[in-house]
Amino acid sequence: SVTQNRTRYSPEYEVMYNALTLSVFCAVHCQRFLMSRVGEDWIFLILLGLVMALVSFVMDFCIALLLQAQKWMYGGLDSNVILQYLAWVTYPVVLISFSAGFTHIVAPQAAGSGIPEMKTILRGVVLKEYLTLKTFVAKVVGLTCALGSGLPLGKEGPFVHIASLCAALLCKFMSFFGGIYENESRNIEMLAAACAVGVGCCFAAPIGGVLFSIEVTSTFFAVRNYWRGFFAATFSAFIFRVLAVWNRDEETITALFKTRFRLDFPFDLQELPAFAVIGIASGFGGALFVYLNRLIVQFMRKQKTINKFLMKKRLLYPALVTLLISTLSFPPGFGQFMAGQLTQKETLVSFFDNRTWTKQGMTEDFNYDSHSAAWKHPQANVFVILVIFIVMKFWMSALATTLPVPCGAFMPVFVIGAAFGRLVGESMAAWFPEGINTDGIIYPIVPGGYAVVGAAALSGAVTHTVSTAVIVFELTGQISHILPIMIAVILANAVAQSLQPSIYDSIIRIKKLPYLPELGWGHHEKYNIRVEDIMVRDVRYITLNSTYRDLHEILLIGNLKTVALVESAESMILLGSIERAQLQALLTQHLSRERRLEFIRDRADAERKRVSVVSTPSSEEGGQKVNHEVRFQISTEESSFTPARPISPKPLKPALKRTSTAEKNIEIPTSNITHTHTFTYLWKHFKNLLCARPQTDAMEIEEWEEQQLDEQVNFNSWKIDPAPFQLVERTSLHKTHTIFSLLGLDHAYVTSIGRLIGVVSLRELRKAIEGSMTVKGVKVRPPLASFRDSGTSGTSSESEATELHKLWDRHTSISIPREHQPNTSDSDEKSQ
Amino acid sequence: SVTQNRTRYSPEYEVMYNALTLSVFCAVHCQRFLMSRVGEDWIFLILLGLVMALVSFVMDFCIALLLQAQKWMYGGLDSNVILQYLAWVTYPVVLISFSAGFTHIVAPQAAGSGIPEMKTILRGVVLKEYLTLKTFVAKVVGLTCALGSGLPLGKEGPFVHIASLCAALLCKFMSFFGGIYENESRNIEMLAAACAVGVGCCFAAPIGGVLFSIEVTSTFFAVRNYWRGFFAATFSAFIFRVLAVWNRDEETITALFKTRFRLDFPFDLQELPAFAVIGIASGFGGALFVYLNRLIVQFMRKQKTINKFLMKKRLLYPALVTLLISTLSFPPGFGQFMAGQLTQKETLVSFFDNRTWTKQGMTEDFNYDSHSAAWKHPQANVFVILVIFIVMKFWMSALATTLPVPCGAFMPVFVIGAAFGRLVGESMAAWFPEGINTDGIIYPIVPGGYAVVGAAALSGAVTHTVSTAVIVFELTGQISHILPIMIAVILANAVAQSLQPSIYDSIIRIKKLPYLPELGWGHHEKYNIRVEDIMVRDVRYITLNSTYRDLHEILLIGNLKTVALVESAESMILLGSIERAQLQALLTQHLSRERRLEFIRDRADAERKRVSVVSTPSSEEGGQKVNHEVRFQISTEESSFTPARPISPKPLKPALKRTSTAEKNIEIPTSNITHTHTFTYLWKHFKNLLCARPQTDAMEIEEWEEQQLDEQVNFNSWKIDPAPFQLVERTSLHKTHTIFSLLGLDHAYVTSIGRLIGVVSLRELRKAIEGSMTVKGVKVRPPLASFRDSGTSGTSSESEATELHKLWDRHTSISIPREHQPNTSDSDEKSQ
Repeated sequence: SVTQNRTRYSPEYEVMYNALTLSVFCAVHCQRFLMSRVGEDWIFLILLGLVMALVSFVMDFCIALLLQAQKWMYGGLDSNVILQYLAWVTYPVVLISFSAGFTHIVAPQAAGSGIPEMKTILRGVVLKEYLTLKTFVAKVVGLTCALGSGLPLGKEGPFVHIASLCAALLCKFMSFFGGIYENESRNIEMLAAACAVGVGCCFAAPIGGVLFSIEVTSTFFAVRNYWRGFFAATFSAFIFRVLAVWNRDEETITALFKTRFRLDFPFDLQELPAFAVIGIASGFGGALFVYLNRLIVQFMRKQKTINKFLMKKRLLYPALVTLLISTLSFPPGFGQFMAGQLTQKETLVSFFDNRTWTKQGMTEDFNYDSHSAAWKHPQANVFVILVIFIVMKFWMSALATTLPVPCGAFMPVFVIGAAFGRLVGESMAAWFPEGINTDGIIYPIVPGGYAVVGAAALSGAVTHTVSTAVIVFELTGQISHILPIMIAVILANAVAQSLQPSIYDSIIRIKKLPYLPELGWGHHEKYNIRVEDIMVRDVRYITLNSTYRDLHEILLIGNLKTVALVESAESMILLGSIERAQLQALLTQHLSRERRLEFIRDRADAERKRVSVVSTPSSEEGGQKVNHEVRFQISTEESSFTPARPISPKPLKPALKRTSTAEKNIEIPTSNITHTHTFTYLWKHFKNLLCARPQTDAMEIEEWEEQQLDEQVNFNSWKIDPAPFQLVERTSLHKTHTIFSLLGLDHAYVTSIGRLIGVVSLRELRKAIEGSMTVKGVKVRPPLASFRDSGTSGTSSESEATELHKLWDRHTSISIPREHQPNTSDSDEKSQ
Repeated sequence: SVTQNRTRYSPEYEVMYNALTLSVFCAVHCQRFLMSRVGEDWIFLILLGLVMALVSFVMDFCIALLLQAQKWMYGGLDSNVILQYLAWVTYPVVLISFSAGFTHIVAPQAAGSGIPEMKTILRGVVLKEYLTLKTFVAKVVGLTCALGSGLPLGKEGPFVHIASLCAALLCKFMSFFGGIYENESRNIEMLAAACAVGVGCCFAAPIGGVLFSIEVTSTFFAVRNYWRGFFAATFSAFIFRVLAVWNRDEETITALFKTRFRLDFPFDLQELPAFAVIGIASGFGGALFVYLNRLIVQFMRKQKTINKFLMKKRLLYPALVTLLISTLSFPPGFGQFMAGQLTQKETLVSFFDNRTWTKQGMTEDFNYDSHSAAWKHPQANVFVILVIFIVMKFWMSALATTLPVPCGAFMPVFVIGAAFGRLVGESMAAWFPEGINTDGIIYPIVPGGYAVVGAAALSGAVTHTVSTAVIVFELTGQISHILPIMIAVILANAVAQSLQPSIYDSIIRIKKLPYLPELGWGHHEKYNIRVEDIMVRDVRYITLNSTYRDLHEILLIGNLKTVALVESAESMILLGSIERAQLQALLTQHLSRERRLEFIRDRADAERKRVSVVSTPSSEEGGQKVNHEVRFQISTEESSFTPARPISPKPLKPALKRTSTAEKNIEIPTSNITHTHTFTYLWKHFKNLLCARPQTDAMEIEEWEEQQLDEQVNFNSWKIDPAPFQLVERTSLHKTHTIFSLLGLDHAYVTSIGRLIGVVSLRELRKAIEGSMTVKGVKVRPPLASFRDSGTSGTSSESEATELHKLWDRHTSISIPREHQPNTSDSDEKSQ
């Protein structure tokens, strides 16, 4: 109608039309401008910082409420010790059980710290279900309850995960507006910034947060991401502290655990040996903590009867552990010897206190405030109490962090470190009551400074980071002890790194996440290992002349994510690599129902012609054929709506039979989910078809299939990665490691003048590195079992895999080579 | 004799022999153990830290002495103002002239900051003569004199360079003991640590040093290098400060510019807008500084007459600039309005002072100390003096940092920033004399805090770093202003980064160092540029069937560092790449004297046989032939001692002639040093041979050469890089940039299913990135001219190049395509 109007040439219409066009143009332009702005990094980062600050503040508020409630209950029941004990114990048991149950039901991925998984994700591996809204809810609720229980748990690791979840959800949300957030490398950049925000708004420590997140999650860090982290973390920390001011908790923006050490003479040069001792002892302590933590996990899993029992009653283990810990810390009971009534925060405040507890030899004239009073016991010395506190909290923390609730280990370790530092500091103060420096002015020793040093050193040792020093500066608001802290942290790191992996790497190994271990420092022998020493020489490849049968065989062997494409088996010139899914689709398409139907139709046409020529057709038979055709056509149309999925494939039974007899030493991909999925589907489909069809039809189709399989592959529709990463035989392990970590590679082909001679995957590299390392991980559970156990898609695929396994065993009698099993499961990890 | 002894079986001998073997074994083992220990990183880092701390301390000591001497002279001559002026002015002029002259004579590479060059070196580019002992001496002596002159120059950038020099020299020194320091990637890791040490021991700021060096020098940072930096920088800072304690300068280890701001209430929330204003203004100021600095360099170089004059009298420019600056800061003259008598350090101390200068409205009851007194002028307001100080120092610093002496821009900018912050702080204090917070207790405003914020913000803006915040914390020993500082630094960075490159990137562009520019933030269009848009499609390649003539032609075209090897011109399947030097060696070897001599000998033998058969030989002629042979044999043996160098090559004149007539549109590699070197050598050699030989011989050899050139290349002895980095047409610019920076690539081939279709080099990438950027560098001097002008090897090769040029022009009359010239010079940069 518009064209009609315009052909009649009416000027009013013309003007209106133009105005309309212009206004639409303007509106579109404005909208596009706004959209493009929405896509900008800084808006995203501000939003992220804001959201995380709010989350952090609200969570802190709720945790404080929960802790207060426990104290209130405990205080209100002071008439009856048994009631008091029951209240003291039941409260955390209920909270932890709820946390564990909630986490388990909503999103089991939310359990634990989250830093190991973020490290893996930032390495480029996609962990399923790890960055969803469900996980966010589970993590936030679970963490609040867990911390509200008063158990020695931390919130730092989970906060890294929560911030990443926030970032991922924000990305999704903002991609409704702008299209920029689809870029994968950008997403990873944003996740890296989110990790910094997580630590930053947890401790109100933007600089320490950025550095800690870099140290903990990255191998190679893009400096251009640096400002993102700083920007978002600073904004987040700022809002977090401003909220506290608005809430009248604070007068102005200050540090979380503000200290008031003197500025003029923070410490004497002669005190440095004591600080060094703290560092070295913390190094050993940190390694011991990691070892103990792993030992507990290992023990719980090795004991099959316990394990079975616990698997059935999932909430029993958390409840028992909580019961044990709260019983021991019951203030009127054993808790009186370890300041059981203090929360983590109160404990830290008392440790960082400016005054010396032992100065006047425990006399009464020392003006105790409420927190410090907990360390004063009529029967026991303050040293004894500190030692008991350290020992008890040590194993309690190591035990508590194995619970299946969202929790971190940083804060408990930090507290233990502070206690140890305080112990050394108090000892020094008792030893030199007048201070060390005797040149006139007396500067007494400040045990609080020792506590700060100890906290930084022990947390640094457990996490293998140096930036705990910066976190400590920001937490206390004082930097006067910078040199002692740096010295202690570096010494602690040196000791701990040579004894044990970091707590996060330990968890990565326990969970068998697909992560490349670090090259340890000073391992010079690594410079002498070459790629040719570790590469797999028996590479699966397809050539330009490959038939569909070759493709099929490659798919059956199938522990590879990608397959190499070479020019020919003689020249072996590497042309590129093809994804497994591509091959599968190609094969499925070639033997597709459409093509088979075409064949059947052609055959039917030919037969009908033959029949019509030779004899009169039985009308019944003809009708059946037509029915068949109609039914198939409908289903074909249906399947054409979902062309991307490998749906409606041709039965592959003959091919399966052939290969299983031909290849004796075959590997069954027991756990490759996509693979088994397809084949199970094929198999079921095939059985259905078998039942529906007369025997003769099936045999003809078998023949047709055999024919089709011997055809050469058509290359036009292939999606080939023409530049897979290539190494040379002489490339050193060191360089290979660098390249793999830099580019986040999964595998690389080894070529010699363009000829493919081998392949190196993450697995070989990991083996090579771990083989030359003294520290070894433990192999307890199957990889990613914690995710697969309860993931919805995981469970179904596993049951299907077993089904296929049975079928397979019935049809063939091949032996499964056991040593190849971890191989298949490794590729499973990668494909997840 | 030993075997004799043992066969006679004497038990004493046996025992002694065994003991000897054992002891030798032990000794060897011990020595090996020690050697292996010597190679360890931590020993290296401790040595590096120790040496740098000593260097820093001694330099600081000398600089303080020099500055004191000036003050002493100035103070001693207070009877006569003219004498006083002469002393005040002559002293820095002499020092700066000496510094410039010394640097120019010993090692011109030592001039300037050093950070831009270190950034380039850490990028993987080898800059000649940049890490030698000579440069070290020049830098240390030059820097001491330059800073001793009292000009607004910094020591931070040069310290990065000095530390790198130290590390490189230590590496060399330690490679006498262990063999590990030959690894190139290791060297770069050590240099990265050295940069951290440089900043760390300059400011006694280990954490800030590590972060600053990362931000300033790296694009992608290996987190495993992190501990190295921290370890060495902490150790260095520790020793540096301990030396001060031992020297009785300090009572204990404290910060360099210790502040004493109150801890309870460092600032009010309502003061934050003022801090934000400081940040934004500093951003503009920083950009202006970078622009001004570049403008001065540009102006000095554009003015040809000035330039020529200055080139002749190299010391005149520094002397004139110094004269101008010292005249203006002469205390009894204009210097009284800008606190001219204070050194940089004193100025900073007065800015960071706790007290408010304007509190009582400039009344006398304020207790001025010596430094603050400089800001009090009977006629002028403190605000006026501060404004004059800022404006004057701003252009003075921008001018002074262009001097050809070792100097940095960080410290002057830091001082200006502190002055600006102080100005804002004093204004605030004057505006709100009772402080902003009116809820009962009065907290007055602390202008010193503003000065700290301003210093961090302006230095952050000029260098485009966030870690200046951390440096400030460590310098002042207080972290209470963390949030204002972070906010100001981030805002300053945001403004400055969107206006101008950092001072270091600006210098990189001015000096045309081969560095890849950063992708700016928020440039989304970069995600849409593909490799196919920027790649060069006309790739030079050789095939498996190439003749030596093809090789020769490729070498003549020669602006490439490496040449692609493809299977054949039809298939274009990329097999690898070959270095230019390899090709040259191959060609030289094929047409070598040995092979030619063999040919001559064969020919001579054949002739002799023919002669002896046909006619009687003249004895004289036969003797001459034998002599010839003997002489040639000797020279052959000589040359066999140096098989690696392309020495004693065959004359290539006929080949040169042929190609020059065949290829009209040829490019002459005017500045490729290795190339011209070889050819000049060939040419001279050829002329010598021509004179020594009869004409007939030469013609025969020419024939033989023609024959040889048409032979196919023998591939067995080639050293091929079989895995050059490959990209795909669809690779985005963003990803390409990442890969190039991650791997330090120089070029990458673009392939499509194994077929070579293009090449991308650093140059194309740089163009593509800069083409889409608004901020552009200046192109004033030929690349690396500052290094080439005076380098010993550089000069000789340049003169040779001209020589060759003349020869070439005489023989051929080809036109040189002008637009290809930057191309050749670019490859020159890379090959240096």
